[in-house]
Amino acid sequence: MKLDYAQMTWGEAGGASDRLAILPLGATEQHGPHLPLTVDTVLATGVARALADRIGAVCLPPITYGDAWNNEAFPGTISLSPETLAAVITDVGRGVERIGHPALITLNGHFGNRGPAAEAAVRLADVGLPVLALDYPGLEDIAARHCDSIPAGNHFFHADEVETSMMFALAPDVVRLDKAAPEYPEFPEDFGTRPMQLREFNESGAFGDPRPATAEKGAAMIAEIVENCLPLIAAFCEENRIGAPAWPR
Amino acid sequence: MKLDYAQMTWGEAGGASDRLAILPLGATEQHGPHLPLTVDTVLATGVARALADRIGAVCLPPITYGDAWNNEAFPGTISLSPETLAAVITDVGRGVERIGHPALITLNGHFGNRGPAAEAAVRLADVGLPVLALDYPGLEDIAARHCDSIPAGNHFFHADEVETSMMFALAPDVVRLDKAAPEYPEFPEDFGTRPMQLREFNESGAFGDPRPATAEKGAAMIAEIVENCLPLIAAFCEENRIGAPAWPR
Amino acid sequence: MKLDYAQMTWGEAGGASDRLAILPLGATEQHGPHLPLTVDTVLATGVARALADRIGAVCLPPITYGDAWNNEAFPGTISLSPETLAAVITDVGRGVERIGHPALITLNGHFGNRGPAAEAAVRLADVGLPVLALDYPGLEDIAARHCDSIPAGNHFFHADEVETSMMFALAPDVVRLDKAAPEYPEFPEDFGTRPMQLREFNESGAFGDPRPATAEKGAAMIAEIVENCLPLIAAFCEENRIGAPAWPR
Amino acid sequence: MKLDYAQMTWGEAGGASDRLAILPLGATEQHGPHLPLTVDTVLATGVARALADRIGAVCLPPITYGDAWNNEAFPGTISLSPETLAAVITDVGRGVERIGHPALITLNGHFGNRGPAAEAAVRLADVGLPVLALDYPGLEDIAARHCDSIPAGNHFFHADEVETSMMFALAPDVVRLDKAAPEYPEFPEDFGTRPMQLREFNESGAFGDPRPATAEKGAAMIAEIVENCLPLIAAFCEENRIGAPAWPR
Amino acid sequence: MKLDYAQMTWGEAGGASDRLAILPLGATEQHGPHLPLTVDTVLATGVARALADRIGAVCLPPITYGDAWNNEAFPGTISLSPETLAAVITDVGRGVERIGHPALITLNGHFGNRGPAAEAAVRLADVGLPVLALDYPGLEDIAARHCDSIPAGNHFFHADEVETSMMFALAPDVVRLDKAAPEYPEFPEDFGTRPMQLREFNESGAFGDPRPATAEKGAAMIAEIVENCLPLIAAFCEENRIGAPAWPR
Amino acid sequence: MKLDYAQMTWGEAGGASDRLAILPLGATEQHGPHLPLTVDTVLATGVARALADRIGAVCLPPITYGDAWNNEAFPGTISLSPETLAAVITDVGRGVERIGHPALITLNGHFGNRGPAAEAAVRLADVGLPVLALDYPGLEDIAARHCDSIPAGNHFFHADEVETSMMFALAPDVVRLDKAAPEYPEFPEDFGTRPMQLREFNESGAFGDPRPATAEKGAAMIAEIVENCLPLIAAFCEENRIGAPAWPR
Repeated sequence: MKLDYAQMTWGEAGGASDRLAILPLGATEQHGPHLPLTVDTVLATGVARALADRIGAVCLPPITYGDAWNNEAFPGTISLSPETLAAVITDVGRGVERIGHPALITLNGHFGNRGPAAEAAVRLADVGLPVLALDYPGLEDIAARHCDSIPAGNHFFHADEVETSMMFALAPDVVRLDKAAPEYPEFPEDFGTRPMQLREFNESGAFGDPRPATAEKGAAMIAEIVENCLPLIAAFCEENRIGAPAWPR
Repeated sequence: MKLDYAQMTWGEAGGASDRLAILPLGATEQHGPHLPLTVDTVLATGVARALADRIGAVCLPPITYGDAWNNEAFPGTISLSPETLAAVITDVGRGVERIGHPALITLNGHFGNRGPAAEAAVRLADVGLPVLALDYPGLEDIAARHCDSIPAGNHFFHADEVETSMMFALAPDVVRLDKAAPEYPEFPEDFGTRPMQLREFNESGAFGDPRPATAEKGAAMIAEIVENCLPLIAAFCEENRIGAPAWPR
Repeated sequence: MKLDYAQMTWGEAGGASDRLAILPLGATEQHGPHLPLTVDTVLATGVARALADRIGAVCLPPITYGDAWNNEAFPGTISLSPETLAAVITDVGRGVERIGHPALITLNGHFGNRGPAAEAAVRLADVGLPVLALDYPGLEDIAARHCDSIPAGNHFFHADEVETSMMFALAPDVVRLDKAAPEYPEFPEDFGTRPMQLREFNESGAFGDPRPATAEKGAAMIAEIVENCLPLIAAFCEENRIGAPAWPR
Repeated sequence: MKLDYAQMTWGEAGGASDRLAILPLGATEQHGPHLPLTVDTVLATGVARALADRIGAVCLPPITYGDAWNNEAFPGTISLSPETLAAVITDVGRGVERIGHPALITLNGHFGNRGPAAEAAVRLADVGLPVLALDYPGLEDIAARHCDSIPAGNHFFHADEVETSMMFALAPDVVRLDKAAPEYPEFPEDFGTRPMQLREFNESGAFGDPRPATAEKGAAMIAEIVENCLPLIAAFCEENRIGAPAWPR
Repeated sequence: MKLDYAQMTWGEAGGASDRLAILPLGATEQHGPHLPLTVDTVLATGVARALADRIGAVCLPPITYGDAWNNEAFPGTISLSPETLAAVITDVGRGVERIGHPALITLNGHFGNRGPAAEAAVRLADVGLPVLALDYPGLEDIAARHCDSIPAGNHFFHADEVETSMMFALAPDVVRLDKAAPEYPEFPEDFGTRPMQLREFNESGAFGDPRPATAEKGAAMIAEIVENCLPLIAAFCEENRIGAPAWPR
Repeated sequence: MKLDYAQMTWGEAGGASDRLAILPLGATEQHGPHLPLTVDTVLATGVARALADRIGAVCLPPITYGDAWNNEAFPGTISLSPETLAAVITDVGRGVERIGHPALITLNGHFGNRGPAAEAAVRLADVGLPVLALDYPGLEDIAARHCDSIPAGNHFFHADEVETSMMFALAPDVVRLDKAAPEYPEFPEDFGTRPMQLREFNESGAFGDPRPATAEKGAAMIAEIVENCLPLIAAFCEENRIGAPAWPR
């Protein structure tokens, strides 16, 4: 039995309520000319499932819309406001607590979700549910080791070799590498200091060069992301006095 | 090309912005001892995709959590509050309008979502986006024609022959018919008049007898639901002066 | 002494705090050419008072504005948003709980109030106040037995023989039967599936034929509605372990 | 025809949309041992109707619950939060504007409603609806001229000769003067500077001596309140360039 | 050591947590041609510090923006909405309670803040924090004794001899008396009954004659305001069973 | 004339409405054993004033409370919720827009304010006010060049040589260097991934070694922060087509 709500019955969910619960946070957002709009959801869900397998946790259904305001100038991007997204995560957290899980891990695949996820984590902590808010820990180093292309910079991994490789590993049918083309946009000097549509300086939606992407690289990167999560989860469980999951080391 | 955000790039989304957009509304909720917690999302998405194919509309990613308050006494049920759910649909609607779609169709697979979907539809109508809020039109008649079991009554189609058949048609791998068992709960006299956990009078989570379910029945019912949507969409488009989609008749 | 806040002092309210409290939910909305804008408030209050008398409950002052969005195209219709209406009912419920009543019954006279009333009922249930949300139970059957006109269909009882008769029974001075005229509007095919102003297909505001209305019919229908409430209240009290009111049978 | 929504049809409301609209603001609150809990609604509605008659304005249905927080220690008091009350008034104001009335007058009969009424007035002014927020203008002088009892002080007119007289004029059947008794509470030194339940220093709920109340005094005071409103309305109309109503002088 | 957060470390704040906490409520608002936009913050903070010294309480940092809607027609006025201001005071109150202070005193220097301060006080009282909401107690009498100019009336002390004298006592460098000029505006007949920009009838922003202002008058008035606070605080502490501060008498 | 609301009259504010407006964002938060609780407000205001001088912009009054949730375990820390803080900044931005300023710069001195400031910036951008959200640009490099102590790491500059030096430059009277002591806390492995009270691993409230702090270092660092702001402001003005301020180069 996979510990995934997409396969579990309510009885199985009840039986697994002493385990950690993992909530993938995705988005609906442009991902260049070669990837579909659901990349962030596919990747966050894939990583969350791999992590759930690894530590014996339960994987919840993903949040499929995120805060992608700065990509709204590209069609196909549909956002929740940060207030709405924080409310969604908070409501899910309350459900997780009601079921009896000792803690929630949010596994986030989209930069714009960080603020709302952190805000929801504080709200849930204030009412007694420990929350660990993970992105892809150590991604910058992982990418440097596995990728052949030069990153676009500014900690951006978007529709590039990293995301394209991970998509090849998780959902190869929807990757159209023949449409992929490199773009190394020049970031404005005041990048990060004002509300800014990325389309102002980015034409294709890709950041970097997706062309060397392979499924092997993607699988390897996902596996390393999962391993990087483990010590964080161990520390989190210890600090919250949650019986550490007995994952194989 | 499928007109599905799970496969479309932003360029394709931009090129399809003159089409209707369909938003599947799912839920995370108990579905008896033989079906997973994601049934409502799987079914709403499956019907929405079939409808999108039929009329040349765009299928958006599903909302994966709904208002399932009255099933919360069963583990595995995780709800959004009605306010949060209405906010989610409203935010998605604003994104749909920004992209330029002439209208939004919500395709709802979970009873508890009706109120919030209707509320969001009014809000969006007030700011200029026509919204058609569909459930599964004509389901009661369709079920009567295709199913062999007696319905549980009270317009309830939950973890029964209907939903199990549709799951067989859409996601057979997660159906465990060997676990299926009939339950015909006795509805309390004041059913529908007070906040009530269904678990008060329902033990297994199933309403009716899922055992005669087959993929063929499911496929046939989905096809009829889709056909039942067509005249509603035609009337909706005419009333809102939206160029009627030229679907094959 | 009538157990009606319109006649009770605070001392009497305190002495009756072990009884059920009934809150009439009205509206301010067009009711055709022959009835005033306050029909829903007058009727809900009248039925609530009759019910309070019958079971020894306390009748609270009515909510005088409801959610009548779909009649706003007719002048004289003034709505609360569903959020505001749910907040009003919730606040009143909290007051009822503070006073010490064991439960609240909302007695609703206007269709558009159902969603907000149900939402408020869940919120109040979550904080410990049992709420029974009644409309006019069994009205369709009652109307069929007492009325001479053909109903307009679609479960619509609005400015018709039913409401006009009940107004004759409760507030005859404001009924102007000479202005009454029948209208059997053709409901659009997509009725109930999108935000829709009733005025799009209804000219006079009446649904059906009010002309055969009489006070006798109205009084009889009110009495039957009240009787239909009794088993629902009995079940509600039993489920919530509220000492069943000892009404005469 | 009375210009009162309790008697008007939608057609008549449409025909009167060029007139001022008056909204009575009441409350559900303790009023001593001799008056019912609905006094503030009865009085505000009575004064509003008299004012509407006087100036040819339309009288809307009253708001029946107000912000009576500081009387909640007496049973029978049921409050809206100030946020909810402001939302109610704002929603009604938007309806008034939609119908086309040039302005809204709130006629308030309960002290605790002043803040929310003023807040709603600002919100409505910001979206273009002029609002005049009246209490009972000049009541202190009027009371001094007509009443025989000594006022309780601190601008308090609550369950005293003033309110009891006005109730005698408007709803004599629910006044029980035989239960009336004087109470001259000693106001705490920090009265008005902290959230304070009046019951801390007031036993009966009455402030002053209601016993000399008569219907004649009540009718005279209502008439003078109405006259005191006129110059305020005239100034308000002039400042907002609303064609001054041609009331008889 | 001054008990002022502007000088205290967290250790000192912890050591003073058994004392009363005073929160100055200021505003950013026009104050005539001779005073800066921060007058209300400067004065409220100055009075709060003097009061804190007098009774051994802790002075918190001031709220620097208030609800100054009716001065927004003058540039330099920047308001919080009443909802936002009430939320700010409520959040600060929750922090005060968390630290352990037995009660909060808000010391308000701006008329428009009264409603939101009272609303926040009720909310905080409902969750267990006693709040005393002071303005400048007895200011009208104090002003009459110390000032040489005639007040503008209507209980208005704005950019006049009172405020200018207090500014001379607290922040003389930013007073430009050479720019001061008297203005005695004629208040509209409906003043106080509708949302009204003061600039409609007030040209300079001053109300009265600031020219006779002196630092001595200001210091004397501040000292008397502080003394007037003492009995209110004593009563407040007694009613809330807070060990009365042992201030020198 | 200083372009600072603390010194400006409304007339001067009106005359400067074509200039940029700068809003300092402070906090009320523990700052170790040697600095007061208002450090972040003092520093943000000091830097904002220096920047305003440099570019001819207007300096607004500071926000004095921020989101300091993760320091709440230290007494003396008082937070706004992120929602409240975002509302405050949004309200101030609306006032800035009403006055006519072409844009708002938030100058933030406290890490926890970043999310709410960014959220408010998006809201304001959506209604037409350009917002540049600055912290202390380039602080890490500046600190490395000017400071003698080793930083505590993790981009933390809190109650250390940097902040203490800047306090010496701006408010030397409230610095008590004799109380200063170094602390190099060990950051938990999962730092930054869950809601975490800093006090869990930090005893004194200081991060690093404040002892080598001097006023000269502080003044130099402030001057460099200001210079680092200039190209960001220039780019921001150009992108928003705001006439670039003609500051001396």
